[in-house]
Amino acid sequence: MASDDSRPTFISILNSLSRIKLFVSYTPVITNDNLNKDIGRNVFFKAENLQKTGSFKVRGALNAVTHSSGNHGLALAWAANILNLRCVVVVPRDVPPVKIQAIMKHGAEVVRCDPTYTARARKCDEFVELDNLSFIPTSDHNDVISGQGTIAIEFLQQVPDLDAILVSTSGGGMISGIAVAAKHIKPDIKVFMVEPEGKHCEKCLRSGLRLWSDPPEVIDTIADGIRSQQLGKLTWPIILDQVEKDVFSMTDDKIIDGMKYSFEHLKLVIEPAAGAAVAAVLSDKMSSLDPHIKNIGVVICGGNVDIENLPWMKKTNISTNGTT
Amino acid sequence: MASDDSRPTFISILNSLSRIKLFVSYTPVITNDNLNKDIGRNVFFKAENLQKTGSFKVRGALNAVTHSSGNHGLALAWAANILNLRCVVVVPRDVPPVKIQAIMKHGAEVVRCDPTYTARARKCDEFVELDNLSFIPTSDHNDVISGQGTIAIEFLQQVPDLDAILVSTSGGGMISGIAVAAKHIKPDIKVFMVEPEGKHCEKCLRSGLRLWSDPPEVIDTIADGIRSQQLGKLTWPIILDQVEKDVFSMTDDKIIDGMKYSFEHLKLVIEPAAGAAVAAVLSDKMSSLDPHIKNIGVVICGGNVDIENLPWMKKTNISTNGTT
Repeated sequence: MASDDSRPTFISILNSLSRIKLFVSYTPVITNDNLNKDIGRNVFFKAENLQKTGSFKVRGALNAVTHSSGNHGLALAWAANILNLRCVVVVPRDVPPVKIQAIMKHGAEVVRCDPTYTARARKCDEFVELDNLSFIPTSDHNDVISGQGTIAIEFLQQVPDLDAILVSTSGGGMISGIAVAAKHIKPDIKVFMVEPEGKHCEKCLRSGLRLWSDPPEVIDTIADGIRSQQLGKLTWPIILDQVEKDVFSMTDDKIIDGMKYSFEHLKLVIEPAAGAAVAAVLSDKMSSLDPHIKNIGVVICGGNVDIENLPWMKKTNISTNGTT
Repeated sequence: MASDDSRPTFISILNSLSRIKLFVSYTPVITNDNLNKDIGRNVFFKAENLQKTGSFKVRGALNAVTHSSGNHGLALAWAANILNLRCVVVVPRDVPPVKIQAIMKHGAEVVRCDPTYTARARKCDEFVELDNLSFIPTSDHNDVISGQGTIAIEFLQQVPDLDAILVSTSGGGMISGIAVAAKHIKPDIKVFMVEPEGKHCEKCLRSGLRLWSDPPEVIDTIADGIRSQQLGKLTWPIILDQVEKDVFSMTDDKIIDGMKYSFEHLKLVIEPAAGAAVAAVLSDKMSSLDPHIKNIGVVICGGNVDIENLPWMKKTNISTNGTT
């Protein structure tokens, strides 16, 4: 790739870290001896579910909002609240109520829309035009990407020997920021994408082509945090440059297994998007990975899940109803 | 109290820390801004649910086993396994299966008994006499107390400004170790006990008398980790000396609320015994506490809970069955 001044760099990520670090948590890294024994590698989980608002998103949101007033998701609501800015969050109707309540708790206005890309974009455009608000995309924004990249700086401070990092991916803001920072610090490190089945990123990355249909589709997956099928326009070239072509693609069943593994063994409450990354660690693809990749970092991206309706509970209820 | 050479001291706790620290986790401290705003104090949760085997118990177990071969619970199984010692764990029949499976995974022999104090003691005596094993009580043992006390050293390294520490209490091993270490480092710090309703510790501490009936009773509480009613013979005088007479006494409903709060807001999977401590933070008693007690440490003692049968799920199932 030709160099591009507006593209996030290690310096922009380092600057982001100094802007946000007084406000965000330096999240801990969790390990599990039994898991390491079982898979024959050392796995380090960066617990961003313990981050402010329960996900890594505050890093990018706060970094973006310190540059411009804006709006997006719980993290933006939190960041705007700190800085006393107006915040309107446009959410698809099928977002878990627990997330909406949390957004409103931070003083943001919530506007609902149909769960399609077009409906969301139209609603956001309305506010930009009529109320003169700035639009901050969830991932495809240089300040957001730089903010998310701060995870990698912390992670490599905590575990300098990482050989690889696994990142659950939606629009690609987190993985592109992490790739830029991690590869600057440690050029040989490998960054792997974890996706829900139906995203088809491996095919896109191997061909170097955006094979997705337009308008962008929403993937039918339990992992509500990573439902958008397409990588962003800004994140795509970074990911194509710096992320491995091997993609960990996870079914809903595996994602639920990953969540359960975390609840039972890591003692961390995580949402399905993070369950996908845990599932990747437990997958057949992981066991066939180059054995030189010994120390594996996994970003636990968030913990915003409705604990009254955990997916394995629903299953039990259905089967109980069926037999009585 | 007259001084007693065998009583745990700050030095014995410091020595324990140097013996165990290569094997146990330096667990993180978690905070929550919304909680702090809501209750007008700063709460710091020491996440021992993220400790090896999912509870603080490994600290005392490993410290005891490095002094003598022994047996008790999951933590002892883990410790004995590290040191290649035979370990027999006597468990009451009503212990959650998830705990028994975990004990067996660490290579210990599991022997079941009736859930009474007398049955447990008799079964343990058999093994001590017939198989020449050493008996290591769950809390009333100086090496165990010293091991658990290491929590306080770490906690005050992490949060030097703590004004108080809240500790869920069963036999009293953890709270007595923590009190000795914390008060040595910071004589003005207050250590508060959290108990399940029915333990009646406030009455005992205020009168200075062991008012419990013998043989020791088991409290009927959801908090399986803190069911024994009596404090130990070794822990009692330490607690009487060093722990506040005000006791946080929690009902099962409050304990469940505390667990839910942790799952939803702290993103930590915790067991009921730890839920009791979170409930104490949210209690009326807490809001009437001296406002100079600003920075409050809470030990999240463990996370070994059956995630297929969380208490709030059972409730939902019952009401669903009732209406269909």
